[in-house]
Amino acid sequence: MRAHEMISTHPHVRGNTNEALIRCIEECYSCAQICTSCADACLGEDMVQQLTQCIRLNLDCADVCTATGSVATRRTGSNEEVIRRMLEACATACRLCGDECERHASMHEHCRICAESCRRCEQACQEALRSMAA
Amino acid sequence: MRAHEMISTHPHVRGNTNEALIRCIEECYSCAQICTSCADACLGEDMVQQLTQCIRLNLDCADVCTATGSVATRRTGSNEEVIRRMLEACATACRLCGDECERHASMHEHCRICAESCRRCEQACQEALRSMAA
Amino acid sequence: MRAHEMISTHPHVRGNTNEALIRCIEECYSCAQICTSCADACLGEDMVQQLTQCIRLNLDCADVCTATGSVATRRTGSNEEVIRRMLEACATACRLCGDECERHASMHEHCRICAESCRRCEQACQEALRSMAA
Amino acid sequence: MRAHEMISTHPHVRGNTNEALIRCIEECYSCAQICTSCADACLGEDMVQQLTQCIRLNLDCADVCTATGSVATRRTGSNEEVIRRMLEACATACRLCGDECERHASMHEHCRICAESCRRCEQACQEALRSMAA
Repeated sequence: MRAHEMISTHPHVRGNTNEALIRCIEECYSCAQICTSCADACLGEDMVQQLTQCIRLNLDCADVCTATGSVATRRTGSNEEVIRRMLEACATACRLCGDECERHASMHEHCRICAESCRRCEQACQEALRSMAA
Repeated sequence: MRAHEMISTHPHVRGNTNEALIRCIEECYSCAQICTSCADACLGEDMVQQLTQCIRLNLDCADVCTATGSVATRRTGSNEEVIRRMLEACATACRLCGDECERHASMHEHCRICAESCRRCEQACQEALRSMAA
Repeated sequence: MRAHEMISTHPHVRGNTNEALIRCIEECYSCAQICTSCADACLGEDMVQQLTQCIRLNLDCADVCTATGSVATRRTGSNEEVIRRMLEACATACRLCGDECERHASMHEHCRICAESCRRCEQACQEALRSMAA
Repeated sequence: MRAHEMISTHPHVRGNTNEALIRCIEECYSCAQICTSCADACLGEDMVQQLTQCIRLNLDCADVCTATGSVATRRTGSNEEVIRRMLEACATACRLCGDECERHASMHEHCRICAESCRRCEQACQEALRSMAA
């Protein structure tokens, strides 16, 4: 992804990028794809009946990551309170989805990769939150 | 919209619908459409230069409302903490977008309607939050 | 939904609304909610194993309806070719999802309602396409 | 992004990935982020009045890319006709957005990067379409 290159060209940003927030944006888009893929892979497993809670958390997490990625991308004007709320919601969605995927990680490789992605995205959201408080 | 009829048929819901949450879902979908439309109408105004903060808040609000509507629709398994966080984020996005639209309401009919929609959606989110605490 | 009232206030639209397209926008947002809800209700059924194709089509249809609703809402400048392509994609997604849901309609009320919604949305897309050809 | 690693773990895919489609998925998610960013950067320019058509195409392209990325990610069951339609819609949205951004590329670095991204995504959609015809 080229979020950094792109955001650094914004007329109000030039030379003043928030690296933690940009890394978070990239994790959000990637985690949205991975959660969409994990929901679908779980759905294709013979034991789908045991994975319904996992699919539900995957779908929620994908929706929240997508919205967070878009909202955090914007730099015109300001909407810090909403970015903050979405980063909190996204960290929560990633934590819960990561916990659930971890339970199935030894059995399903897609859950193992998804748990990792959720951890990274959760941390990126936390670091972006800290960077905005500063 | 037929969110009520639809959600009442969920195998885990039957006869036990949360009316406040369902009303909130309908407001979220409607507000997403209205905010998308208001951003676009502002963009078409001759004075677009003075409406850039409004457009930004409209776009953020549309993204948050869409994600909140999807997440709040799901009933399989549970993810209450994420629904709660999203309702909070959505109430915030609607409050700020509603405030900004209200400033332009006397000049632009689309901002007047959008401000109203944001107020209704904000209140519906607050009521859904209260209904979940109970 | 208030898509008609909203779009009629657009500075480039005033007094010249395309009723078929506006009805289609409302059907798209409603069908997105209903397909999201049907995927989730199918996931909650004991026989989820037999509903995986239905869930997959529901999720695809929800994504396509959401994007079509947004794209069709915009009136600033023009992007007719993309609206047309999305209306075609949406009519296809709704037709296939509606066919699959119909197979489960006698057993699952959510599939019956979803099949109806998909039919209405498919027709609304076709009528919007015809209205744009004129 | 890790779309390839993720999709290769799907129970119905193992050892049989469509490389062209996976590359397309990654371009779709990246292009969605870049178009969202370009719309926002255009909105922040002093000459926003001259960039309204560009913003409109950016927003449409972001919506179409996001939906195409999700739909193309799924492998459970099948929905080839919808994937095909979305790849066509996405190629069209990227072509038109790329053409418009190119007009502003010498003046705005964000439009230059966005035009490049749209070209890459358009080509990836075309190649994915060819790979599915085979």
